[in-house]
Amino acid sequence: MNRIESAKNPKIKHWKKLHTKKGRDTDNQFLIEGTHLIEEARKSGINPIELIISEEYDVPKSWSDWQVSITYVTDRVMMELSEMKSPQGVIAICQQLDHQLVPSKGRYLLIDAVQDPGNLGTIIRTADAAGVDGVVLGEGSVDLYNGKVIRSTQGSLFHLPIVKGNLLEWIEEMKRAEISVYGTALENGQDYKQIDAPSSFGLIVGNEGEGVSKELLKETDANLYVPIYGQAESLNVAIATAVLLYGLRKEE
Amino acid sequence: MNRIESAKNPKIKHWKKLHTKKGRDTDNQFLIEGTHLIEEARKSGINPIELIISEEYDVPKSWSDWQVSITYVTDRVMMELSEMKSPQGVIAICQQLDHQLVPSKGRYLLIDAVQDPGNLGTIIRTADAAGVDGVVLGEGSVDLYNGKVIRSTQGSLFHLPIVKGNLLEWIEEMKRAEISVYGTALENGQDYKQIDAPSSFGLIVGNEGEGVSKELLKETDANLYVPIYGQAESLNVAIATAVLLYGLRKEE
Repeated sequence: MNRIESAKNPKIKHWKKLHTKKGRDTDNQFLIEGTHLIEEARKSGINPIELIISEEYDVPKSWSDWQVSITYVTDRVMMELSEMKSPQGVIAICQQLDHQLVPSKGRYLLIDAVQDPGNLGTIIRTADAAGVDGVVLGEGSVDLYNGKVIRSTQGSLFHLPIVKGNLLEWIEEMKRAEISVYGTALENGQDYKQIDAPSSFGLIVGNEGEGVSKELLKETDANLYVPIYGQAESLNVAIATAVLLYGLRKEE
Repeated sequence: MNRIESAKNPKIKHWKKLHTKKGRDTDNQFLIEGTHLIEEARKSGINPIELIISEEYDVPKSWSDWQVSITYVTDRVMMELSEMKSPQGVIAICQQLDHQLVPSKGRYLLIDAVQDPGNLGTIIRTADAAGVDGVVLGEGSVDLYNGKVIRSTQGSLFHLPIVKGNLLEWIEEMKRAEISVYGTALENGQDYKQIDAPSSFGLIVGNEGEGVSKELLKETDANLYVPIYGQAESLNVAIATAVLLYGLRKEE
């Protein structure tokens, strides 16, 4: 049984590096914290490389026959390793996901430089709920494995394929596969309610301040907007994504 | 000209108390930070009691004829008073809003114990965008004047009436005014797309973990849910509110 009592232990120092993008990319790993996220990963067939469990943690009974390497740590060491104010007492080290995604019939969400971790996580959770078949993260978006992104997904990052990609190339490929591609734009757009939602589409949502880049908007079949009936200047990007993804499903 | 150079100045100490609910309620005041929020307040006819401006702040030209009491402070004092990592250099002290709201024809959003400040702010911003006529904050919701709530509204708290109220009494009054009241519930609910959206309604959204309280759900005309097509267990409350508010507008 592995047991670590010092926060200065080289293993702890190494794992702490997984809080940074550089550390995650070097090892091709990431951390998830808490019972719920670990169970979501497990349900999706993702087996952590290592579980880190603190003294006070009450291991769920359903984990008793789980074949996984465990390191036990003191509460103080867990406090050091955790990103939470009140750690739940369990962290898993996982291999970064190796999803494959090829545009075929289906619903796709393309994300152009969304930078707030809470927004990206909520967008992924919403895409999962709305039955999206795959998410493409374009350049300039916050790292999928950022702790706050993961927490905001509430586990949805394990439910649908999420890949990094060049969005211009994706638009090209979706067009070749005869999938309509919609951008989102406040100006020169079309009210989303006018779109007779096809069962296959690609929807592009964009950066919090700048929206979807002009370069991409030029290549789409149409650019949609969510009408503003009151005095707000705009909608939060996760909110707009939700209204569009559900709006495009219409009556079913 | 008032100028304060010490963070220990009693005025600064007093204003810092406005970062707490108790301090805000004692003085019936609140703080807003940054040019955009202050301009939104001003556009809505709200005149701050005092502007606090730091050395480096570049006062907008349009403010030059503004009759308002100003206190100048050093950047260090601003740093002390600000809730932001990188303060914009301007804070306004405002009187708490004294909105009146009586249910008549229109769209109302009733908020039952939403506790996350970012969620409440985003819900208010979304309600503004979706053309809601008034928001009622039930007991147990986070304080409207919490700094993060205000920032997340992006100024929408100045755009529509927001009042505190007893939600059971509000449901009663809306029914008397012949306005349909919809709760939101994951179980025993109705798909929101089946509702032939009336131009007047009250929609109740609820706590992040618990949803809308059972006591309220019993009194509604119908309880709605947003269908989950994927594997997500639920939607974030601000996301669900957005889908419902826009979904209830249908084609216009």
